[in-house]
Amino acid sequence: MSGPELSKTIPETRERLQAVRNAGKSIGFVPTMGALHYGHARLIEAARSENDFVAVSIFVNPLQFGPNEDYSRYPRALAADIDLCRSRGADLVFTPSVDDMYPEKQLTFAEVGKVGDNLCGAFRPGHFRGVVTVVLKLLNIVQPDRAYFGEKDIQQLALIRRMARDLALPVRIAGVPTVREPDGLALSSRNRYLSPAERTAATVLYRALLRSRDLAQAGEAGASVIKKEALRVLESEPLGKVQYFDLVDENMQPVDRVTPGIRAAVAVWFGSTRLIDNMELVRIDKDSQ
Amino acid sequence: MSGPELSKTIPETRERLQAVRNAGKSIGFVPTMGALHYGHARLIEAARSENDFVAVSIFVNPLQFGPNEDYSRYPRALAADIDLCRSRGADLVFTPSVDDMYPEKQLTFAEVGKVGDNLCGAFRPGHFRGVVTVVLKLLNIVQPDRAYFGEKDIQQLALIRRMARDLALPVRIAGVPTVREPDGLALSSRNRYLSPAERTAATVLYRALLRSRDLAQAGEAGASVIKKEALRVLESEPLGKVQYFDLVDENMQPVDRVTPGIRAAVAVWFGSTRLIDNMELVRIDKDSQ
Repeated sequence: MSGPELSKTIPETRERLQAVRNAGKSIGFVPTMGALHYGHARLIEAARSENDFVAVSIFVNPLQFGPNEDYSRYPRALAADIDLCRSRGADLVFTPSVDDMYPEKQLTFAEVGKVGDNLCGAFRPGHFRGVVTVVLKLLNIVQPDRAYFGEKDIQQLALIRRMARDLALPVRIAGVPTVREPDGLALSSRNRYLSPAERTAATVLYRALLRSRDLAQAGEAGASVIKKEALRVLESEPLGKVQYFDLVDENMQPVDRVTPGIRAAVAVWFGSTRLIDNMELVRIDKDSQ
Repeated sequence: MSGPELSKTIPETRERLQAVRNAGKSIGFVPTMGALHYGHARLIEAARSENDFVAVSIFVNPLQFGPNEDYSRYPRALAADIDLCRSRGADLVFTPSVDDMYPEKQLTFAEVGKVGDNLCGAFRPGHFRGVVTVVLKLLNIVQPDRAYFGEKDIQQLALIRRMARDLALPVRIAGVPTVREPDGLALSSRNRYLSPAERTAATVLYRALLRSRDLAQAGEAGASVIKKEALRVLESEPLGKVQYFDLVDENMQPVDRVTPGIRAAVAVWFGSTRLIDNMELVRIDKDSQ
C-alpha cells in the first residue's frame, strides 16, 4: 500500500488540491498538531468515509501556546504520524514549517467573543485566538468541503463552529466523538507526559463526568448539585489539581440548570500536565428537532 | 443590453457562483456599500478587464459604523446602483439584507493589529474591525479570484491586503487608483452631504496633498516639514476642521522621512461630513523591484 502524498509548502498544497477540486472531487480535511493517536485516526476515518480526497495537516502552531506552556516539548513524531495517516487512507499530508505559515509577523487574528471566555479560555489567554486563527488559515489553504475536529476539545470545536457560521466559511465543520482508553481516559497527545501513577489517577476526569451524567440522567437538574458532587469525586484524587469543572451550553456559557445538550467540562493538572475532558449530560433528542 | 443578475441571499449567490466556477470561469469581485459613483465604476471596469465573471455586492454594513456615525443616513440608491453596474458590464449584483449577513449576533471578528491603529483607526474605534470582518465574510461567500478596492480608502486597502496575506486567503487583492472631480476632490459617496460652500472648500484636501507631493518631489524628505506646510494649507480653509494629516508607510505607520512608497493621508470635517484622501509622495520605481 503506497503512502499519502507529502507536501511541505503552501503553494505545493494549493496546487495539488486545486487539481483535486478541478477533477470534481470532494475534500475532507483533518487539521492536527501531530503526535497522532487513535482519536486522530477516527477523524481521518470520518473524513475518508465522507469525501473523495482526504488531507491531513500536521503543524504545531506556536500562536496557540502561552509563554509558559509546552510548545517546545510538545511531542513531535512525524514518521509515526505519516504511518498512521497511511493506515487510515489519507491522500495528502501537509507539514508546513513555522516560516511557511508565518513568513512575517502575524498581525491578523480572528476571535470569537464570549465562546472563548470561559473554561480553558479563562486560563490560557490568547490560546483560542491562536487556535481559530491557524484553523482559519489552514481552511483557506486547503479549502475543504468538510473539516473534522474531535469533541474532546469541545470549546475549540464550539469556537470553530461559530466562526464558520459567523464568517460564512464555505466548509462543513464536523465533530467526532471522543475516543477513550479502556479505563475511560480520553486519548490525548499529552497523555504521554504522565507518570504511571498519574496515568492511573487520570481516570478521575472520566469518573467525575460519568458521575455527573448519572446524576443528570437520574433527574438532577441543578448545576450546583452536580458540580459539587463532581468536585468531590475529582478532589478524592490526591495527584490531581482541579482547574475547572463547569456545566456549559453550546456557546460554552455556564448554566444553572441541566437541559438537553448541556455538557460538563473539566480540566485537571497532574504535575505539569494538564488534561481536559467533557461529556454531554442529557442527549439532545435528534428526532424531535 | 440586459442587466446583471440580481441575488439577495447568501445561498442563491453561492449557488450561482459555484456554477460559474464549475464552468472554469474566473471571478472578479467588487464589494461596495452602494451609492455608487465613477470611482466604483472604475473598480467594476478593472474587474471586468481581468475576469470572466464580475460580481458586485451592495451592503451597508452596520458593524463598521460607530454609534454616532452616519449608518442610518448613509445614502441608499439601489436602482441607480444597478444601472451603473449594468453600464459597466457586471454579471451579478448581490444585495444581502442585514439579517442575511448577520442572522445571529456576530461574535467572530477579524482584526489586523497595528495597521488599523493610526489615521482613521485612531478616531473610529471598531470601524476597521467591522470592515475587515465583513470583507472576509463577503470573500467567503463570493470566493473570487480577485477583489477590487479603491486606493482612496488606503488604510482599508492596507488592512485587507495584510489580512489576505496573514490568513492565506485564496484571492488577489487589487487596489485601483482614486478617481477625482476635475477640481481634484476625490469621489466619495459622502460628497453628496456637502453644502455648495463646503463642496468648494473640500478641494483643500487635494491641495494639501499636492503641496506635500511637490515638496517631496523637490527633495524635502522631512515629514515634520511637509506636515507643517500641509497643515498650513488645510488650516487656510475656515470651513474645514482637520482631523489628521500624516505621512505613513505601507503598514500605515507614521514615518519621519519620505522614501518611495510613503503616502500622505488626510481627514477633514466639513460640518458633519468627514472626508478623507491620500497620495503617494514619491512613486516606488517598479522597474527596480
